[in-house]
Amino acid sequence: MSFPNRNTLWAHAIVEEIARAGISAVCISPGSRSTPLTVAFAEHDDIHVFSHLDERSAAYFALGRARRTGDVTPLVCTSGTAATNFHPAVIEASTARVPLLLLTADRPPELRDSGANQTVDQEKLYGDAVRWYKDLPEPEATDRKLRSLRTDVGRAIGTATGTPSGPVHLNVPFRKPLEPVHVEGDIPDSLSALAATGRTDESPFVRTTAGTMGLGDRDVHRLAEAISVDRGLIVAGPADPPGYDKESLLAFAHASGFPVLADPLSGLRFGGQNRVAPIIGGYDAYVNTDATALWPDPEVVIRFGASPTSKPLRKYLAGTDARQLLVDPAGEWREAEFTATDLISVDPSQFCARLARSIRQPGDPQWRSRWVDADNAHWSCVEQSETFSEGHILNTVVSESPDPATIVVSNSMPVRDLDRYGKPTTTSITALANRGASGIDGVVSTALGAGSATTDHLTLVIGDLAYYHDMNGLLALDRCDVDATIVLINNDGGGIFHMLPIESYDPPFTSQFKTPHGVDFEPTGELYGSPFYRVSNMETFTERYTESITTPGSTIIEVQTDASESHEVRDNLQAETIENVSSIE
Amino acid sequence: MSFPNRNTLWAHAIVEEIARAGISAVCISPGSRSTPLTVAFAEHDDIHVFSHLDERSAAYFALGRARRTGDVTPLVCTSGTAATNFHPAVIEASTARVPLLLLTADRPPELRDSGANQTVDQEKLYGDAVRWYKDLPEPEATDRKLRSLRTDVGRAIGTATGTPSGPVHLNVPFRKPLEPVHVEGDIPDSLSALAATGRTDESPFVRTTAGTMGLGDRDVHRLAEAISVDRGLIVAGPADPPGYDKESLLAFAHASGFPVLADPLSGLRFGGQNRVAPIIGGYDAYVNTDATALWPDPEVVIRFGASPTSKPLRKYLAGTDARQLLVDPAGEWREAEFTATDLISVDPSQFCARLARSIRQPGDPQWRSRWVDADNAHWSCVEQSETFSEGHILNTVVSESPDPATIVVSNSMPVRDLDRYGKPTTTSITALANRGASGIDGVVSTALGAGSATTDHLTLVIGDLAYYHDMNGLLALDRCDVDATIVLINNDGGGIFHMLPIESYDPPFTSQFKTPHGVDFEPTGELYGSPFYRVSNMETFTERYTESITTPGSTIIEVQTDASESHEVRDNLQAETIENVSSIE
Repeated sequence: MSFPNRNTLWAHAIVEEIARAGISAVCISPGSRSTPLTVAFAEHDDIHVFSHLDERSAAYFALGRARRTGDVTPLVCTSGTAATNFHPAVIEASTARVPLLLLTADRPPELRDSGANQTVDQEKLYGDAVRWYKDLPEPEATDRKLRSLRTDVGRAIGTATGTPSGPVHLNVPFRKPLEPVHVEGDIPDSLSALAATGRTDESPFVRTTAGTMGLGDRDVHRLAEAISVDRGLIVAGPADPPGYDKESLLAFAHASGFPVLADPLSGLRFGGQNRVAPIIGGYDAYVNTDATALWPDPEVVIRFGASPTSKPLRKYLAGTDARQLLVDPAGEWREAEFTATDLISVDPSQFCARLARSIRQPGDPQWRSRWVDADNAHWSCVEQSETFSEGHILNTVVSESPDPATIVVSNSMPVRDLDRYGKPTTTSITALANRGASGIDGVVSTALGAGSATTDHLTLVIGDLAYYHDMNGLLALDRCDVDATIVLINNDGGGIFHMLPIESYDPPFTSQFKTPHGVDFEPTGELYGSPFYRVSNMETFTERYTESITTPGSTIIEVQTDASESHEVRDNLQAETIENVSSIE
Repeated sequence: MSFPNRNTLWAHAIVEEIARAGISAVCISPGSRSTPLTVAFAEHDDIHVFSHLDERSAAYFALGRARRTGDVTPLVCTSGTAATNFHPAVIEASTARVPLLLLTADRPPELRDSGANQTVDQEKLYGDAVRWYKDLPEPEATDRKLRSLRTDVGRAIGTATGTPSGPVHLNVPFRKPLEPVHVEGDIPDSLSALAATGRTDESPFVRTTAGTMGLGDRDVHRLAEAISVDRGLIVAGPADPPGYDKESLLAFAHASGFPVLADPLSGLRFGGQNRVAPIIGGYDAYVNTDATALWPDPEVVIRFGASPTSKPLRKYLAGTDARQLLVDPAGEWREAEFTATDLISVDPSQFCARLARSIRQPGDPQWRSRWVDADNAHWSCVEQSETFSEGHILNTVVSESPDPATIVVSNSMPVRDLDRYGKPTTTSITALANRGASGIDGVVSTALGAGSATTDHLTLVIGDLAYYHDMNGLLALDRCDVDATIVLINNDGGGIFHMLPIESYDPPFTSQFKTPHGVDFEPTGELYGSPFYRVSNMETFTERYTESITTPGSTIIEVQTDASESHEVRDNLQAETIENVSSIE
């Protein structure tokens, strides 16, 4: 293999090492300075290029894909403000531990801080939000530089998938010529084949193996003692990609006999595990209320994953005087009530596997039944209610979901409604949301990125503000060839604010918080080539939704709701649930 | 005046100091954590609130407004990814010296790095791109804290408009309650009136006075000697807001007798100064070509502002062996050919005023005539050509412009076409572009922000990629009540790439660089409530354009062009210009 110039060779080495690490897709935004990388990716047979015009959407698309797969997704952009458009997704990736490889092209070093065009300070552009930053040296066809480059790419990928996983940033300066034009003498004959084309067996230049934190025997014994109680709870918060090791977690649940309170984003709420484990999903409606006021406290709580979506659950846990074990593979603190008593820096699957074998005896079956009964009471209430509300839309999306399916929900309300209305089911549903930083930005792209990685049916349930915020992301339906059912819950503004005390202060509530925009979204269907339907009752919604599942291509279903009515339904239904749960026993 | 709690008081103090500094508008994006600030701004009679749903657009809107006025424009957002959406505009503001005051709400300190919802590391979020960063202390109703707060706000505004002007970031933590709910004992009776409500005469707590760098007498003498030559050039690059002091610059031009090469973004290309000074605007078409090959070199070049938009001009200057004086008020280097011989850290108006009085005699009138004749030759070519091209659209936008007018152009091609085709005129036109970092993002919002600050007629000339990138920004037409004529030059992809060598490599040229998107933008008219016209010849364009000027409300005029044809027209016209210029004398 021969290369016309050092940039071509340099970019090829980067791309080749990425491909050899098993990475199969990249998101590229067009630009001039990134030309060597773009050309090298486009020419590589094993890597699919998703081309995006808006870098913000590009980064969220990559995030969605990496979140769905757990695989590192690289991103390429040109120099200047382009790179800052990645920033929102980088923050989400950092907090939610999603592996991204950011490749930002840059001008050569002498042009920095010189007034040169499209040249900005890209050094450590994302601050502490990336797991590793390196400003790559200027491309040069020497053995040492190319070996260092290949090593850096391997390390970057290893770091992105390490503990904790997350974004990694390589800043890549290039000087002209950027195109694959022949430059006499740019590649010396003396360059070794290893430096020029990598390992001859096509393996990565550096294979990285990520260890996981395990428990010592004495710690296992000590913790098993602590856990061997009558009343315990397993709380599975939103999972880091690629999700919990279900087998070991279920073994632990089985051995302990503890109910599993499964966040909708835990990967445990929906799926086959519901056949074998007491998966509790309705807690958001009844914990921390009169319904549980007389219940005995749990003695121990074992918490996995990020902080649960449910505020009532967080408050309930904060109100118990249980011993609370926070199990985190990276030893980070993910519990802002400061109620945990133990921080256990260990891989959750190792923890579960070891403890499952060491617990003395399973807990009190009555305690478990109490939770199962309460949950059943809640789901009866939901199913008997025939109201048209935002929550019931989420309930229907789950219950009518094909198997398998990926469902992406936006902040602020859809994820909360999925939590309260998404009944545990054996259907294999991967539910995702940007719950790391809980922004309303980039959600369309996140969904389509997730959809790009699977043959699952993809549903996105999104509020109107989030839909508006990332409307540009809809271009990927056509451009990246992703099909989706998009359920747009349009209550014309910030429905979440109706849940907050500011609702009582109007003005400025309507003008500055709810901020109705009055946008008629119907033209977005035409703009992005997707049929757009508007529904206003459950029956039509269910019809349209099930139809969209069996119809090829994408569909946008707009559900016009009233945010304050939906909150009323929510409150009334909760009152019913509380009454029913209270009457158990 | 009494306050229900410390947050209300705290936010009121911030807003009051901002108002007392004479700032009359703020851009706010809805969010919960920022509630105290939002409420305080909304309640203030002297500050107009522009409400934006997408923080990226909000920041560019503020940027456009501040760029147009030179006044600090504050921005408010909630915690989390919201703040990172400001980042692209912050970079542009930093490189282009546009004064912004970023107020990012944050969670209280103990929630940082705790796994709390919507809590990310906002410390120094924009790195070195801001002129000043401060993490404000937790709100508390004590004399010292409130005095420090009022002082900080005054300093922030002073720094944003200092030398160089630019963005300033205050991170503002709040803990609940965020609403103006009464909290008993939160405001002690002992609090002084000064701390609680500021200066009794309603002046700012701290008045800031920005000095400017001046020249010592000996330096004036020395530089006057250097400048007293036959052949000199004044190069006015893109101006920092609020623009050059025209009077002193023209006095200097008059005294020196040097032609003024006026970048379209210098504020000198268009306006009354064309009646009195030799404003040269066509150089992009003929310098650094055969036309100027036999010209004698200038002996001295005096450069103001940022690096000129015109690459031929930059190359021409780099090719001369003139003494080149870079005059910059902040002493920064803004010339990436590294051809300047002197860096003069002094305020341009002081420099001009002092030197105008000290130059021995004006330069050679023949040298000036040479430039004037060359320019006339170019403008004749442009005006005699009856082709339909992107360049001619820009020519028409300038020539048909009402007086006064604000014209905003996008990167990459519109600004270059404005440079080459925008003929100097006495019409008072303020031409603006995001030429700090030269991104294609945020241009719609920048334009509408600029328009919000003036009663000028506003025209935005924008390429299809830039239009797509900030389509969300169009919401401000209605939401912020700004009228604009939007000329959308749609060549279905990245026209700029036709100017680059990568054009010869297809694939990947079309799929990865030109990247045609095939989007039919017509529905965006309906989406954002503006008539949308499509034109395909000069006559219809001119008709629609002049009609839009006299019609109230906004108009989108899409001009469908062929990028490669436009480049051909550009090249042919340049060949003519070169021929005509060469034949002078």
